Amino acid sequence: MTALLDQFIAAFGADMVSMATEAYLGEPRGHYISAPRPLLRPRTVDEVSAIVRFCNELSVGVVPYGGGTGLVGGQVYDGDRPCIILSLERMNALRGIYPDESVMVVEAGVILADAQGYADAHDRLFPLSLAAEGSCRIGGNLATNAGGVQVLRYGNARDLCLGVEAVLPDGSIHHGLRRLRKDNTGYDLRNLLIGSEGSLGVITAASLKLFPKPREVSTALLALENPAVAIDILGRLNTQLDGVISAFELIGRAGFEFVAEQMPHIRQPFAQVPEWAVLVQAASGTGSNVEARMMQALTTEIERGSVQDAVIAQSIAQADALWELRETIPEANRAIGAIASHDVSIPISRIPEFIETMPAVLARIGDVRINCFGHLGDGNLHYNIFPPWGAHKSDFADQRAAFSAAIHDKVAALGGSISAEHGVGRLKARALLRYGDGAKLAAMRAIKAALDPQNIMNPDAVVAKED
Amino acid sequence: MTALLDQFIAAFGADMVSMATEAYLGEPRGHYISAPRPLLRPRTVDEVSAIVRFCNELSVGVVPYGGGTGLVGGQVYDGDRPCIILSLERMNALRGIYPDESVMVVEAGVILADAQGYADAHDRLFPLSLAAEGSCRIGGNLATNAGGVQVLRYGNARDLCLGVEAVLPDGSIHHGLRRLRKDNTGYDLRNLLIGSEGSLGVITAASLKLFPKPREVSTALLALENPAVAIDILGRLNTQLDGVISAFELIGRAGFEFVAEQMPHIRQPFAQVPEWAVLVQAASGTGSNVEARMMQALTTEIERGSVQDAVIAQSIAQADALWELRETIPEANRAIGAIASHDVSIPISRIPEFIETMPAVLARIGDVRINCFGHLGDGNLHYNIFPPWGAHKSDFADQRAAFSAAIHDKVAALGGSISAEHGVGRLKARALLRYGDGAKLAAMRAIKAALDPQNIMNPDAVVAKED
Repeated sequence: MTALLDQFIAAFGADMVSMATEAYLGEPRGHYISAPRPLLRPRTVDEVSAIVRFCNELSVGVVPYGGGTGLVGGQVYDGDRPCIILSLERMNALRGIYPDESVMVVEAGVILADAQGYADAHDRLFPLSLAAEGSCRIGGNLATNAGGVQVLRYGNARDLCLGVEAVLPDGSIHHGLRRLRKDNTGYDLRNLLIGSEGSLGVITAASLKLFPKPREVSTALLALENPAVAIDILGRLNTQLDGVISAFELIGRAGFEFVAEQMPHIRQPFAQVPEWAVLVQAASGTGSNVEARMMQALTTEIERGSVQDAVIAQSIAQADALWELRETIPEANRAIGAIASHDVSIPISRIPEFIETMPAVLARIGDVRINCFGHLGDGNLHYNIFPPWGAHKSDFADQRAAFSAAIHDKVAALGGSISAEHGVGRLKARALLRYGDGAKLAAMRAIKAALDPQNIMNPDAVVAKED
Repeated sequence: MTALLDQFIAAFGADMVSMATEAYLGEPRGHYISAPRPLLRPRTVDEVSAIVRFCNELSVGVVPYGGGTGLVGGQVYDGDRPCIILSLERMNALRGIYPDESVMVVEAGVILADAQGYADAHDRLFPLSLAAEGSCRIGGNLATNAGGVQVLRYGNARDLCLGVEAVLPDGSIHHGLRRLRKDNTGYDLRNLLIGSEGSLGVITAASLKLFPKPREVSTALLALENPAVAIDILGRLNTQLDGVISAFELIGRAGFEFVAEQMPHIRQPFAQVPEWAVLVQAASGTGSNVEARMMQALTTEIERGSVQDAVIAQSIAQADALWELRETIPEANRAIGAIASHDVSIPISRIPEFIETMPAVLARIGDVRINCFGHLGDGNLHYNIFPPWGAHKSDFADQRAAFSAAIHDKVAALGGSISAEHGVGRLKARALLRYGDGAKLAAMRAIKAALDPQNIMNPDAVVAKED
């Protein structure tokens, strides 16, 4: 390793090259740990290009590194071949903001919350929003096609990106930072790089769409009997509130209980913990009557008996408190310690079947608690399973694979996806061989081999070795 | 040719195989004409697969054919190698519609207007809308990533597609008809096929996003001094009418004059022909106050002096009349006969510079009339040039290339695109070599060679042979 480090220091200097500290060698869930490796922290796209070219010549692997918050091990190479970590943290400039065009151009190392702030300072909205926004970086958001809580209205990360600057595996620079809403000049390299999790190149900057800031917002938490009711309500709200629903988040009983157990300072909104709840947010422009329309729609729902209880935020502080509850669930989950976590999506109309049938299937494998929550409006559930009271996740090490297989089998049978918004990384690369479409997997391998013949870019991520 | 025909009849039968009639051998602008070729009209994806596999084995080219309305020659192979035309016209089934999920699954041969109708019958909107909607087909819309008049709000064709079923160049079938809003399982093959204009495979079916039908619509035509004013107004309307502007179309003086000259039965909305005008449409849900908000915003604009004259539709019939004027411009253009047509996009804030400087540049090449119109809200201009009164386009045959080069050079200098929504086809494949990004072009060639090593799919389209 010292030889590799010395080789990179000789080529790029000690300011750019050092041994990676521990923070770069692991990931939030602790499944993947990297051996010590050189860390490169370039400041410009030309430096990134030189590094990748050098690695390609030496056949040294390159693991692009953003904020390190990914949940599928895409940022940690735990194999044996020589490899460097390429952090974009120093490429964190706002290259330009064009409020009249509703576009900004940022470098890959910009932290998501900072990107939101740049837009806000120009009276615009950059709508990508997720729990890790204080530390994740735009490059990683795009490489993984991040989702979050506003996808329902504004789309995934790929939908928010007009163009990228990227370094391809041979070190060439793709200058694609166009600020255009329409551009049909050849194959969609931008979308190929987005979601490829660093396995086809390194995104170094992006032009991003901005939106008008909503001027009227209405937020409510509804207690419901079951998810089928939630989906019915979503359909009716969509019809009535055309285009203004920006979030529709499902919370199950376990979500409330886990937060109450681990974070007792978070206020529980209902006197009685409901079986199910949805957090609804609608937002639109000045004079759009969003609050009155939402109130009317919810009154109708209460009158028809589909809503058991409702908390409608009367202030920004109340809305923030409802969101805090929702956003605290992942933290409570981590405190309790999941046996296995799943980030799945299912055609919305089939979600009730999944949620109703799954507990009995899992009970045949072991006695577990389920925390099912997530972005119901997008058909995206986080379906995490936990040991019963008094037990520890390590007690279930032997059943872990069986739980996940049962969940993924059912998701596949319903026409769903085993990775909705977290990506494939290393955690699901082998599962993808099982659940993925054969023709697509073959095309992926052909594209990977064509663009990265030395297989240097993020080795073993997304595209697993075949048996 | 008879030998090739006989070979295909022997393999697939006389019901599926015939000689193509003249309609399949040309395109609307008359630039490309194909020699007589066998026409194959399969009814199922398995038949498409068998045809492509057969062609791959024989190294026979395959030109996928939708509605034949493309404007860049992507549907007409005019070269010499053995080739068949593969029409999707018989694959025109609605496979399923899921109003609760706001999704429908249609086959590639469904005519766009029929797809709109299926959605409408279920109280949903399929927003893709363009002049050729009565004859173009969904497969072609996706293969070319079609745009149209509602991109500002709903996006291009690729933004409306959740998944595709497609036959890849080796004949394998990609089963990707998922009805999911979030699906991060590997490389984005869907978006790679969308916009590849049949050069990487044949899309045979697609799952498409549906939207709530707008319940309140407001349409207005504004006479303006220049395009810079239009862009200022767009910025202010966007801020005030968050997310509800669904069209913002530019019409220049020539647009009004050409229509008056060629279609005198179309009512001219203004007593005096304005230098510039924009057609604005806003639409949203019940109770959203769209008409009142639009009226208020336009009143403010009139008071500040940015709008010279305005026609605000008071009925659906009046709105339709305004749209008829806009939609008739391409027909008037064809009747007059353009020397050259350009489908360009430019960062919105730089459009005034383009429109102001271009006429003098062109005047140095020849004395022409310019009809500049299009989707200003998307930064997409159709910039077409015509002979002066009394002259004919054939008089300018020698200057044609110089006009286009001057326009495309300026577009490139402003960070724009030489193909906004019509695609590359054969018309712009060589221009792409000049204006395209080098790293992207190399990646495109690598991907094409990897997925289609025999180069059978739509030969010479998009990816031109290098000199």
